[in-house]
Amino acid sequence: MKAVVYRGARHLGIEERDPTPPGPGQLRIAVAYTGICGTDLHIYHGDMDARVGPSAVLGHEMSGLVEAVGPDVTGWSVGQPVTVMPTRSCGRCAACRRGTSHICHRMDFLGIDSPGAMQSSWTLPADLVIALPEELPLDRAALVEPVAVAVHDVRRADLRPDEHVVVVGGGPVGVLIALVARARGARVKLVEPAPARRAVAAELGIETVDPSTADVVALTEEWTGGAGADVAFEVSGSAAGVDTAVRVLTTRGRLVMVAIHPQPRPVDLHRFFWRELELLGARLYQRDDVVEAVRLVAADTVPVQPLISQVVPVDGVHTAFTALEGGAVLKVLLDWREDAR
Amino acid sequence: MKAVVYRGARHLGIEERDPTPPGPGQLRIAVAYTGICGTDLHIYHGDMDARVGPSAVLGHEMSGLVEAVGPDVTGWSVGQPVTVMPTRSCGRCAACRRGTSHICHRMDFLGIDSPGAMQSSWTLPADLVIALPEELPLDRAALVEPVAVAVHDVRRADLRPDEHVVVVGGGPVGVLIALVARARGARVKLVEPAPARRAVAAELGIETVDPSTADVVALTEEWTGGAGADVAFEVSGSAAGVDTAVRVLTTRGRLVMVAIHPQPRPVDLHRFFWRELELLGARLYQRDDVVEAVRLVAADTVPVQPLISQVVPVDGVHTAFTALEGGAVLKVLLDWREDAR
Repeated sequence: MKAVVYRGARHLGIEERDPTPPGPGQLRIAVAYTGICGTDLHIYHGDMDARVGPSAVLGHEMSGLVEAVGPDVTGWSVGQPVTVMPTRSCGRCAACRRGTSHICHRMDFLGIDSPGAMQSSWTLPADLVIALPEELPLDRAALVEPVAVAVHDVRRADLRPDEHVVVVGGGPVGVLIALVARARGARVKLVEPAPARRAVAAELGIETVDPSTADVVALTEEWTGGAGADVAFEVSGSAAGVDTAVRVLTTRGRLVMVAIHPQPRPVDLHRFFWRELELLGARLYQRDDVVEAVRLVAADTVPVQPLISQVVPVDGVHTAFTALEGGAVLKVLLDWREDAR
Repeated sequence: MKAVVYRGARHLGIEERDPTPPGPGQLRIAVAYTGICGTDLHIYHGDMDARVGPSAVLGHEMSGLVEAVGPDVTGWSVGQPVTVMPTRSCGRCAACRRGTSHICHRMDFLGIDSPGAMQSSWTLPADLVIALPEELPLDRAALVEPVAVAVHDVRRADLRPDEHVVVVGGGPVGVLIALVARARGARVKLVEPAPARRAVAAELGIETVDPSTADVVALTEEWTGGAGADVAFEVSGSAAGVDTAVRVLTTRGRLVMVAIHPQPRPVDLHRFFWRELELLGARLYQRDDVVEAVRLVAADTVPVQPLISQVVPVDGVHTAFTALEGGAVLKVLLDWREDAR
């Protein structure tokens, strides 16, 4: 079988390996598609070398078919379509003890800390595998993991129908948050400067705003009858994005912090005080979020097809990673199917 | 009657005025004690001249006795002890429409926007008056308003018994938050560099930490078995205080923003993301908070007597304001009783 292996900054190898037979408690999955996410790109750039060693197998967004079932594993059959929740918690740290094991302090993240999905035959614990409906195309299914992120982010906002939502940042997660929020009955505007990204969002029926030409705060005031937005999602990772997300909010508005900000940002805490605003960190997902993501993608309530900018064969993995660096494409999938059969 | 009048930066006058007879819907109160708060000090320094005009009557922390009852007002009798909730909302703005009229965008704050409590005879709308139990001494009752702030702040935290709480800043509101949190069954530590303030807190049985000599984060880790605090209150108004409040928190910990930060502060948003922290702005109080504050002060569940550093006659108002500037005293009361009888 083939595996995409990290060999150091900007250097990926495709290795031939022997597939691992599934042991007790394990399944082996014939991988169909894997997505490439921002974190994969960070690894590719060498930014996570302290955590990701050479010869690590990347990938945590995927779909596939059960290929082999471990000796004591029940409830699964060969050929069944599946995806994976790629996080394993320790069960003992402070986060786990508080019922928030999804952000475990000693998280084993598959595709970062242990071998991931970018291999044609993936052997892993059965309890991380999530069943997919037969009718869900496997390319769309590879987006379940980022949709689960969006489901979790929207759940953190405790979003209610008819609320006004501003999503700041129109990358894949921003667009997916907008789609999930819309599926919850909210009114949504997406703030994104890149025309190509705005075009994808517009194709999906999401109203977009270009912050380089529009006054987002004034526009939100007008849109909400002077009140301000109920919820803002900060998905841009920029200082300007934080500022916008704070300033668009109405009294008791909620700001969900989705983006990774590598350095402290100036925050208008007086406005948090004055309007009793709320800031809510949101990271990863819980199992319920993944199950809900499968439901939303399968029903096309969250239509993910337009987010798939390119599907490339595994041999084109370098092309796929460099295509993402431009920022013009949203989601690039690697197609593992030829190799796997 | 006498009134303390703002005449410009660092200039207060004591004027003789005629008392106003209560009109329909009004009560006249013989003021017993008024407290001086940080906002009064800001006004005194001239920092709020855009909002507070010359000849404004200051004061919004008080106790007194009903002196006269307006023609159509029922339920009140002369001689009854009372305090005042000094905020009037417009009922029409976005904040009022959301059920958060206590932070109305067009708030009329008595003692800032319209005549306040620093007058021996105060005529005001009866619906702002709150009854006090007969047995509650009127000097302690003058602290009901800042206790209501603390009740509101603790309510915003959704505090549960046995939770670990770090209060950053040991001025009057910080100490009161610590006392209210303790009354709710929480375990509390108060972070305050000034020895005099730590001494008052210690007298009240609150554990204190001096951030100039102790590593507050390491100490909190140790105190909580490595987990971190469930709730932090930022009451210091300093950038360092914000940083401490963020860093002491456990996963999903709540940071209540009580202090006024006049400029944006650098905030570690990555930690908000990583630990799914929550930041909650908290301002003023709702009527329920004031009623609860009366109950807590009357029962001495929140013992406020040690916070009263000085009680001075009205003629000593300049001395009272300047005493507060040093930061060594907590609460200074003006005694209006001689004049009022």
